[in-house]
Amino acid sequence: MTDPRYTALVATLPSTVPFVGPETQERTRGAPFAARLGANENVFGPSPRAIAAMKRAVAGVWQYGDPENFDLKQALAAHYGIAAENVVVGEGIDGLLGYLVRLLVSPGDKVVTSRGAYPTFSYHVAGYGGELVTVPYRGDYEDPVALIEAAAEADAKLIYIANPDNPMGTHQPGSVMEAMIAAVPEGALLVLDEAYLEFAPADTAPPLDVANKRVIRLRTFSKAYGMAGARIGYALGEAGLIGAFDKVRNHFGVNRLAQAGALEALADQRYLEQTVANVAEARSRLETIATENGLTVVPSAANFVAIDCGQDGKFARRVLDGLIARGVFVRMPLVAPQDRCIRVSAGTPELVELFAAALPDALKEATE
Amino acid sequence: MTDPRYTALVATLPSTVPFVGPETQERTRGAPFAARLGANENVFGPSPRAIAAMKRAVAGVWQYGDPENFDLKQALAAHYGIAAENVVVGEGIDGLLGYLVRLLVSPGDKVVTSRGAYPTFSYHVAGYGGELVTVPYRGDYEDPVALIEAAAEADAKLIYIANPDNPMGTHQPGSVMEAMIAAVPEGALLVLDEAYLEFAPADTAPPLDVANKRVIRLRTFSKAYGMAGARIGYALGEAGLIGAFDKVRNHFGVNRLAQAGALEALADQRYLEQTVANVAEARSRLETIATENGLTVVPSAANFVAIDCGQDGKFARRVLDGLIARGVFVRMPLVAPQDRCIRVSAGTPELVELFAAALPDALKEATE
Repeated sequence: MTDPRYTALVATLPSTVPFVGPETQERTRGAPFAARLGANENVFGPSPRAIAAMKRAVAGVWQYGDPENFDLKQALAAHYGIAAENVVVGEGIDGLLGYLVRLLVSPGDKVVTSRGAYPTFSYHVAGYGGELVTVPYRGDYEDPVALIEAAAEADAKLIYIANPDNPMGTHQPGSVMEAMIAAVPEGALLVLDEAYLEFAPADTAPPLDVANKRVIRLRTFSKAYGMAGARIGYALGEAGLIGAFDKVRNHFGVNRLAQAGALEALADQRYLEQTVANVAEARSRLETIATENGLTVVPSAANFVAIDCGQDGKFARRVLDGLIARGVFVRMPLVAPQDRCIRVSAGTPELVELFAAALPDALKEATE
Repeated sequence: MTDPRYTALVATLPSTVPFVGPETQERTRGAPFAARLGANENVFGPSPRAIAAMKRAVAGVWQYGDPENFDLKQALAAHYGIAAENVVVGEGIDGLLGYLVRLLVSPGDKVVTSRGAYPTFSYHVAGYGGELVTVPYRGDYEDPVALIEAAAEADAKLIYIANPDNPMGTHQPGSVMEAMIAAVPEGALLVLDEAYLEFAPADTAPPLDVANKRVIRLRTFSKAYGMAGARIGYALGEAGLIGAFDKVRNHFGVNRLAQAGALEALADQRYLEQTVANVAEARSRLETIATENGLTVVPSAANFVAIDCGQDGKFARRVLDGLIARGVFVRMPLVAPQDRCIRVSAGTPELVELFAAALPDALKEATE
């Protein structure tokens, strides 16, 4: 009996996973992690109002969610002072990135990104047959000028940048991003991933101009709003581009509890401010811990800190393995020279102290 | 400023929606529905154990769900006496159908389905450029023999059938489905959508043979388990085909609360039995109501009943409009002659009586 007839493209794709989940690692090591600080999840969690809304919504989960995400789109439109036609809600930024790549990328089309940037975006590009053109980080910063130049040279359809960046946590000021948007070449679309925006200084976001067809902004309830497991995010952009998502999206794909929670989370901006303050405090403590261990940190505007282990990727990997072995889940950049770092999420004080307790031994072991 | 460069395929796609949601209709009419009986949702809802599990999980929603869906796959594998490698969990059958079509369908590839069958499947096929070859219903039943013949003739890559069928509710016995599976032509894959299986007689499912590469079975927690808004379903099939989903799926796409709820829902088979009994009672009451109004019903093995309004599609549409105007949300088949019917979901006794109260006036109005 022969195999199903996969498409020519699918036949070339590996069954890879962009990220191994911490649960998989827990099963491998036979014990749960004491500190889950590897996936840039926000352990401060959602607003109590959002939690209450999700609990209330559970009894009604027999109903499909509203396929238009009407209430949330209205609330987001009001929040940003734009029209609902400039907002599409989807299954997290991951889901929206998949739809966006599908809308634009045919086999052989060029897509520009930074070498070592978000693997899930690259996974989607490969999944639709796109060809990645990568640009190195400049220092530990994504390089807007080089990305634009590479896009012009390659006649790229998409240019991806995250601001703040992941996995390094660095950011560009809004003025630089504004200049980048203005420089997007004819025929290209800038994918500006702002998943971590709420943690960054106020001037990080360039002006929101939803008349501009050259940029789409992606934001999420997974990070600052503490709802990663709910799978809900949104994109802001020109109405024609936003409307095109209706051609390919899974219309009933957003979880009904997520819709209810996101609406309340957005409404509770005071809780968001508290979270941002909590995260800033954790970042500061992580920097202190690094310093106490003779290490330095990369300046972060996100809810995680890249700690420079001071040697190469092999050494950082050993440090990471030592932390994992001690029940502290962290991740690390995958490409040199950024892979000299480990990436630690901004946890509660208790969790950060577990990291602090494990780091000296992990470092010592890695050095031996 | 020019538009983004959509793919050639996307440029041809309409921004259509497979289904208009009831919320959209409520906004149009300016009032909520009193009885939501149009989307084949299961108003009896999930098991109390599943509800409790989802509520407990809310506080942990800051964490991504396990991208492997490990626990649920293990539970499903044990439930069916198969291996976990034969199970893929995804964002409802809708999401899994999208992945499946993406794996197999390139522009111009042929896909066979019944004329008037599940629109979301057809939406996915069109979305990947597949060409639908349709076969008429035979009576109000999908026609396995004609589907197989059409697939052989068209050299189709996929053959779609739902058993029980939606929108008619009719079903084929397992023996017929077993013969259909055996007859799948070389190079074709049978997509057996069993979303409504739990409501059907025990002999409706053909034997589960996960060594067979010619069939994939799709099941869900949306219907009998009462969790449509949670967006979680699964497919059962040969390990190579199931593994191929890892090439394209959104690995972190399943909601964490849905994972927790589904695990408990599956464990509570007693509650499932109660739901199935409740639904059978509602079906019976819907038949009585139809008879009292001089109408007949199509035999149903699902959680809805197609009521034959006795005339053409225009007449049934008027009956439907009359019900909508009276706050009773129902839907109807879209293709003649099945569109002589309205489709009413099996609700609680209270909701079904709201339908009973509205039907005579809706019929009278439609006749005038």
